[in-house]
Amino acid sequence: MKVTRNEAIQKLKELGIRMTTQRELLLHYLYERLSHPSAEQLYEAIYADYPKVVSITTVYNNLRLLREQRLVKEFYIHHTGTARYDTNVQPHHHLYCTSCHSVTDYAAAGSLPTLASGRLEPVQELPPGFITEQVYLEISGMCEACSQPQPLRREIAI
Amino acid sequence: MKVTRNEAIQKLKELGIRMTTQRELLLHYLYERLSHPSAEQLYEAIYADYPKVVSITTVYNNLRLLREQRLVKEFYIHHTGTARYDTNVQPHHHLYCTSCHSVTDYAAAGSLPTLASGRLEPVQELPPGFITEQVYLEISGMCEACSQPQPLRREIAI
Repeated sequence: MKVTRNEAIQKLKELGIRMTTQRELLLHYLYERLSHPSAEQLYEAIYADYPKVVSITTVYNNLRLLREQRLVKEFYIHHTGTARYDTNVQPHHHLYCTSCHSVTDYAAAGSLPTLASGRLEPVQELPPGFITEQVYLEISGMCEACSQPQPLRREIAI
Repeated sequence: MKVTRNEAIQKLKELGIRMTTQRELLLHYLYERLSHPSAEQLYEAIYADYPKVVSITTVYNNLRLLREQRLVKEFYIHHTGTARYDTNVQPHHHLYCTSCHSVTDYAAAGSLPTLASGRLEPVQELPPGFITEQVYLEISGMCEACSQPQPLRREIAI
């Protein structure tokens, strides 16, 4: 379900779009290094390793191009209202950690719960006549790493 | 749970913000006439009744102000990625009609399902250690009006 870097390169080549160093770097970080980044996180990750090679405008422009070609999906975290980019362009749910802000895919496409199938218990009756087609879940909370108790700092005896 | 027009006016007055004709109109349409509009829908609804009184920039600026004061919540429809504005600023779910694009609140705050309470059956085990705090649901489908069969057009005999 995930678009790969090679698939993205192939598609862009078919469209006659030139593979520049900047674009190569961006595709590498987006498809292979990061998970659900914001445009700014993508820019900062590239900048940290290759300072001043890729501008934030290049990041925005390429994300728009990839979105238009359905090679990436823009979505918004409901909890915060911030935009992220997902290389899995099929319908699926998300887990969002309110502490480290990481996003994890939850449930594969094709196994989306529907009220009709009885897999998701409604908390309130649906309005009469509403026909459910798809359900999107954003489950926010604390991921495993963030929910672990912090190790106690050892006091150093003087 | 819904912010009212009067509460919004009161809060803006406390902040020393002047109540202009434009702002009065915008608050009336946002809090009393429309449901979950986009900025453009809000602008168009006002324009239809009062052409050239309120500009789209005024709409954007006021929505930003109201958002900053938590008098309205900006959220994004996951199905389409488009921004809407909600005068109910408490956590709740949404029903989205893919035909007429209407949005309806679903389940009051305080009755949010949580995996912990067993009210929502997971379709996939949560990663170990993930602690659920809140669940947001977007249920997309067809509202009652859109799911009704269209009445047959009567043929007129010539």
